[in-house]
Amino acid sequence: MRPKESPQAVVFDVFGTLVDWYGSMSAHARRVADRAGVELDPGAFATAWRRRYQPSLRTVIEQDRPWTDLDRLQSESLPSVLDELGVTLGPEDQAELVAGWHRLEPWPGTPEALSRLKAHVPIASLSNGHVRLLLDLSRHAGLPFDTLLSGELAGSYKPDPAVYLMAARLLGLEPGRLMLVAAHGADLAAAKRTGLATGYVPRPEEWGPGTEPVPVPEADLVGTDLDDLVDKIIA
Amino acid sequence: MRPKESPQAVVFDVFGTLVDWYGSMSAHARRVADRAGVELDPGAFATAWRRRYQPSLRTVIEQDRPWTDLDRLQSESLPSVLDELGVTLGPEDQAELVAGWHRLEPWPGTPEALSRLKAHVPIASLSNGHVRLLLDLSRHAGLPFDTLLSGELAGSYKPDPAVYLMAARLLGLEPGRLMLVAAHGADLAAAKRTGLATGYVPRPEEWGPGTEPVPVPEADLVGTDLDDLVDKIIA
Repeated sequence: MRPKESPQAVVFDVFGTLVDWYGSMSAHARRVADRAGVELDPGAFATAWRRRYQPSLRTVIEQDRPWTDLDRLQSESLPSVLDELGVTLGPEDQAELVAGWHRLEPWPGTPEALSRLKAHVPIASLSNGHVRLLLDLSRHAGLPFDTLLSGELAGSYKPDPAVYLMAARLLGLEPGRLMLVAAHGADLAAAKRTGLATGYVPRPEEWGPGTEPVPVPEADLVGTDLDDLVDKIIA
Repeated sequence: MRPKESPQAVVFDVFGTLVDWYGSMSAHARRVADRAGVELDPGAFATAWRRRYQPSLRTVIEQDRPWTDLDRLQSESLPSVLDELGVTLGPEDQAELVAGWHRLEPWPGTPEALSRLKAHVPIASLSNGHVRLLLDLSRHAGLPFDTLLSGELAGSYKPDPAVYLMAARLLGLEPGRLMLVAAHGADLAAAKRTGLATGYVPRPEEWGPGTEPVPVPEADLVGTDLDDLVDKIIA
């Protein structure tokens, strides 16, 4: 971003950046496992499932297959996660876990920080979650987006440049006037290559408490947390 | 809609149904004409421009041309409207009038009625306005949509069935569980043919005060006004 040129809209990565998938999926898993009477380490389960995420997306980005939504990709990867952990769950329990990705809790203070930014510029998601998932998630977590943008609308997934360009096109902006906010260096780097401005928010507990801190990635703006980043965007 | 089966999401026509294009565009035209020092009947202007709307859309729906957004279509039709009224305006004044379609006032009570419905089911636009226009309009008029759906996302315009089907697909619903609310019989009829549920809200002053009342069109639910329709949807 050129100095003194503030973004005219801000789009947000969602999983990990705005909502706590680790804590929320651990809680969903604990509930399902208890009810089914099986032993399951909820944190290890959430982590193992999330690790399947990028390889699943890759099969779509590289066009090995037609565009497929996250519910389907998560359903497909779940059995191998359960196998890995030596756990057996029936189809209904598995469906409930897949649906759990539609009900994740926000990081504390997130709805309020988004509302504060929304008073200045339009805000939207820019997520690999499909529109329906984002609709459920934003209603559940109270994320006050002006609209939902998803890889689904470009028939692909981030970090495919087509996804970032779709966002700029639908928002009617030159890419440089649109900022992506994310907690992930790879997402920010791909946005930057496509010409978007970038903002980084650290989420040190994304992969659970006590995980190794990641180095701060390259970004036009770096916040100490989301409130601080919002302050910097509207400064 | 089958009895006792309430819609799982509601999408709204916007121009005329939620916002008062006649009153708002008249006000924009009055301001621009006064500043330019030209004589212009604001109401006749708004009406004449709106009459160009359907024929413009038709050229896209029938694929005489690639998908083109409303700003472009309105820019193209404006000179002939001004000619018809014997008015001359420069390019900047014309651009301001085109931009006026992004700043239309809601019918009284509309944001509140939408908020009330949103507490029960997801709500979205389903408009021929492009996403950027809808973003500006929903922020200006305080329309609290969960997300913005536009003909742009299907590369067409209502009443093309592709637009209604896109909405059901992105919202993850069988068409019959999605309701379109509109003040226009043609929109409702097209939605119905595509399998959507329908709700009608009368807007007797859409074309200005004192215009002829239109007959109540066919719809699954008919409200006396938007508040009444919301009551019936959530009943």
